[in-house]
Amino acid sequence: MSLDAVLARIDADLPQSLDRLLELLRIPSISTDPAFKADCARAADWLVEDLKALGFEASVRPTPGHPMVVAHGGEGDKHLLFYGHYDVQPVDPLSLWDRDPFDPEVQDTPKGRVIRARGSSDDKGQLMTFLEACRAWKAVHGSLPVKLTIFLEGEEESGSPSLIPFMQANAKELQADIALICDTGLFGDKTPAIVTMLRGLLGEEMTIHAANKDLHSGMYGGAAQNPIRVLTRILGGLHDAKGHVTVPHFYDGVSELPDAIRQQWQSLAFDHASFLGDIGLSVPAGEQDRTPLEMLWSRPTAEINGIWGGYTGDGFKTVLPAEAHAKVSFRLVGEQDPDALRKNFRAWFEAQLPADCTVDWKNHGNSPAGVMAISDPAFEAARVALGQEWGVPAAYVGCGGSIPIAGYFKTYLDMDAMLIGFGRDDDQIHSPNEKYDLECFHKGIRSWARILEKLA
Amino acid sequence: MSLDAVLARIDADLPQSLDRLLELLRIPSISTDPAFKADCARAADWLVEDLKALGFEASVRPTPGHPMVVAHGGEGDKHLLFYGHYDVQPVDPLSLWDRDPFDPEVQDTPKGRVIRARGSSDDKGQLMTFLEACRAWKAVHGSLPVKLTIFLEGEEESGSPSLIPFMQANAKELQADIALICDTGLFGDKTPAIVTMLRGLLGEEMTIHAANKDLHSGMYGGAAQNPIRVLTRILGGLHDAKGHVTVPHFYDGVSELPDAIRQQWQSLAFDHASFLGDIGLSVPAGEQDRTPLEMLWSRPTAEINGIWGGYTGDGFKTVLPAEAHAKVSFRLVGEQDPDALRKNFRAWFEAQLPADCTVDWKNHGNSPAGVMAISDPAFEAARVALGQEWGVPAAYVGCGGSIPIAGYFKTYLDMDAMLIGFGRDDDQIHSPNEKYDLECFHKGIRSWARILEKLA
Repeated sequence: MSLDAVLARIDADLPQSLDRLLELLRIPSISTDPAFKADCARAADWLVEDLKALGFEASVRPTPGHPMVVAHGGEGDKHLLFYGHYDVQPVDPLSLWDRDPFDPEVQDTPKGRVIRARGSSDDKGQLMTFLEACRAWKAVHGSLPVKLTIFLEGEEESGSPSLIPFMQANAKELQADIALICDTGLFGDKTPAIVTMLRGLLGEEMTIHAANKDLHSGMYGGAAQNPIRVLTRILGGLHDAKGHVTVPHFYDGVSELPDAIRQQWQSLAFDHASFLGDIGLSVPAGEQDRTPLEMLWSRPTAEINGIWGGYTGDGFKTVLPAEAHAKVSFRLVGEQDPDALRKNFRAWFEAQLPADCTVDWKNHGNSPAGVMAISDPAFEAARVALGQEWGVPAAYVGCGGSIPIAGYFKTYLDMDAMLIGFGRDDDQIHSPNEKYDLECFHKGIRSWARILEKLA
Repeated sequence: MSLDAVLARIDADLPQSLDRLLELLRIPSISTDPAFKADCARAADWLVEDLKALGFEASVRPTPGHPMVVAHGGEGDKHLLFYGHYDVQPVDPLSLWDRDPFDPEVQDTPKGRVIRARGSSDDKGQLMTFLEACRAWKAVHGSLPVKLTIFLEGEEESGSPSLIPFMQANAKELQADIALICDTGLFGDKTPAIVTMLRGLLGEEMTIHAANKDLHSGMYGGAAQNPIRVLTRILGGLHDAKGHVTVPHFYDGVSELPDAIRQQWQSLAFDHASFLGDIGLSVPAGEQDRTPLEMLWSRPTAEINGIWGGYTGDGFKTVLPAEAHAKVSFRLVGEQDPDALRKNFRAWFEAQLPADCTVDWKNHGNSPAGVMAISDPAFEAARVALGQEWGVPAAYVGCGGSIPIAGYFKTYLDMDAMLIGFGRDDDQIHSPNEKYDLECFHKGIRSWARILEKLA
C-alpha cells in the first residue's frame, strides 16, 4: 500500500477536510451546560454520519449524560482504538472573544494560518486529524490499513461521569491492541511528541479546629491556640530548604529517569527562560537538584492550592478563629502509592498538631501516575513515523498534569495508550479565542496516515 | 464631709437611680447605624439635662458625627475628668434576644438580680454609676467634693472618628489632673480592679505576588513559585518552638513585671482551667515560660488573624495562585515601639522572600501599649477605696485588649487615666441579652462615692 499516494490525497483534499472541521465546529457542543444538550447530541450524530460515510459501522450510544460514539471498521492483525472527545469548554467570558466562538474562521496571523473557534484545538480539530487520515486511506486504497475502533466521548470537559461505567459495560467491544489518544500537543512548536509519563494526583482538604468559637485576640491572644498559626507552621514545613517534600516515605516509588529518556530530554530545546518568563517568573522554584523539565514531568510535588481562615474582608478584625482550612494536592510519579501517601501525609500532619487542636480531613480523590510501556514496538514505530513527517525526531515526553483517560484504558480495559497530539502551547484551549494552527491540522492528518502505515 | 451619709443616701435612692438608668436604656442610641442618629442625639440631650439637674454646667457639643456631652461642676484643688460613652452596640441578631433590647427589665436570675438591656453594662450602666455617686454627694452635702469635668462620647462603638479632633480642639477645656474611665470590669466576680497595663496593637496586611496570573498546578507545579507556600513558610516561622516571636528586636522595650505587681497577680485567683475550658481548650498556647495572666496582660503577641489564597470553594481546583494574603496583628506592651516593630517585621518578612516573589503591605494602624503611672498617689487612694467597698483588696490588672481612649488622654491631653469599672465577664456586652448586675450598679455607685472622697 502506497503511503505517498495517501499523503498526496491528504494534501489535495485539505480544503474539503477543513470544510468538514468547520461544519463540526459550528455545533456548540458545550457539555457542562444543560442548555446545549441537544447540540451535544447533534455533534455525536454528525460524527456517526461521517464515520458511516467512511465505511465504519458507527452508532450513537446513549449514556445517562451525553452520548458516546462508537464505530468499528477496517481489517487486519493489528487492532487499534482511537479516542477523542467531541464536547467543548464553555465560552465565557464571551466579551473577550474577537468573534462568535461557534462561527469558525480561517485567519491569517503573523505566525501562520489558524482555525479560530471553540474546540478547534480541544478536541474537534485533533480528533478530525485521525478521521481525515482514515478518509484518505480509504479513498486511495478502498480500505483501512488496520482494524479500527473509534471511541468518541461527549463529557470530557465536564468530568467524564459516564466514561468508566461505559468502559466497564462495553469492555469486550472496546478491546484492542493499543489505544491512540489525540488530546495533547507538540513539544514547543515543531517537535512531535508522545506522552509516556503522566503525573497522578491526590487531593486533600483539612480543617484544623481549636477553640469552640471565634475569640477576640485582646481577650485570648497569647494564651489560646490559633489554628491559622498551627496550619502555617505545619504546612510551612511541607518542603525543606532545597524544595524536597518532607513527608516520610514521600519518595518511595519514585525512580530516576531511564538514561535514554534523560538523554532525549536533555536534547529537547526547552526554553526555560520563556517558560517562566511568560508568567512573570525567572527562577525554578522546585527541587533545586532537578531540571525544570524533571520538575514538571518526572518528579512528584506537593502544593497548597487553597488556604483560608479568620477574617479576610476589608479592614481588620482581631479575631482568633475557631478553624483554619487548606487544600493540598500532590502530583504523583512512577510507582508512588496514593493510598500510602495519603496515610503518611495525614500521620505526618497529625503528629505535629499541638494539644487542643484536632483536624478533619476531606478526601478529594486520587489517581496514580501513568507510565507507558514504551517497550511495546508500537511506540517506536509511531515515533519514527512522527519524525518523518515533522523533520525532527519525535520525543517521549512527560506531562505535568493528569490525563485520567490514559489510566482508565489501563485500569478498565488493560490496554496501553499512546498519547499523540498536535496542539501548540498558544492554542488558548479553555480560554477565549481558541485556535488550531492549519499546519497542525494538516501535518496532524499526515502524521496519522504515516502512523497507521507503520502500525499496520 | 461624711462618706457614711453619702453611702446611706445611695442605698436609699437605689430604686430612683435604677429608674433613671432604665430611662436612658430605653433610648436606642446605636451609633454605627445612621437610622439611630436622632436617638443618639436624644441620649446626649437626656444626659445634659440630668447633669444640669446635678448642678453641672452641661452642653451638647456637635461633631461631624454624634455629639459629645461636656459638663463642668464642683470645686476644689483636685480636678478630675470622667469619661464614659452613651452609644451602644447594634443588637443583631435580634432573634437571639429574649426580649426587646431597648425595653429594659430588672430580672431575677440564679446568680442574682440583673438589669437586662443593650447598653446596660457597656456603657450606660457603668457611666451612670458615676453620675449617681455625684448625685448622692450633692444631695447630702449640697456640693461635689472635687472639681469635675464630665466627658461623654457617642461614637465609642463605631470607632470614635470625632474623638481625637475634639480632644485637640478642646484640649484646654478638657484639662484635669487625671482621667477616670468607667468602661472595664471586675477581676472575676468580686475583686475590684484598676487597669494599669493596656496592650497596644499593630495591624499589618500582606499580599505576596508570584506569577502574573493563576497557574495550573499540572502545567507548572514544581517549577513555579506558589505564594501560599511562601506565605505559610514565612508565617509558620513567626514563633519558635517555645512560643517566642522570632522577629528581630521584637522584645525590645518589654520589661519584666515589677515585683509588687507580680505578687499581686500571683495572689489573684485566676481560674486558668475555666478560662480555657469555657472555650474548649486546656493548654496555654503562648510563651511556655510565662503564666497565662502574663501571656494575656504583660506579654506581647503576634497572631495571624486572617489568611487566604487560591481556591477556597467547594471541591478542588489544582491552582497555583498568583497571590496569597494574610492579616497579622501584634499586641504590644511596655515601651515597644510600634514604628520600629513594623519596620523590623517587614524587613524580617522580606528577607525570607524567594526570588520572583514580591510583597505589598497594608498598614492597619497601631497604638502603643499603655502603662499607667501608678506612682501617682491617686491610684493607691482609689485602690484602697475600692477594697473598702468590695471587702477584698483591689488589684492592679492588665488588659489583653487595647482601650485606645486611655492612650488618647495621654497623647492629646497629657493626662494619666485610671480605668475602673464594674462589669463582669458574663455581661454579654456586644452580644444578645446584655446585662449588668444590680449588685455591680449599686456597689459601683458606692465605689465612686468612696473614690471621690479619697481623691478630694
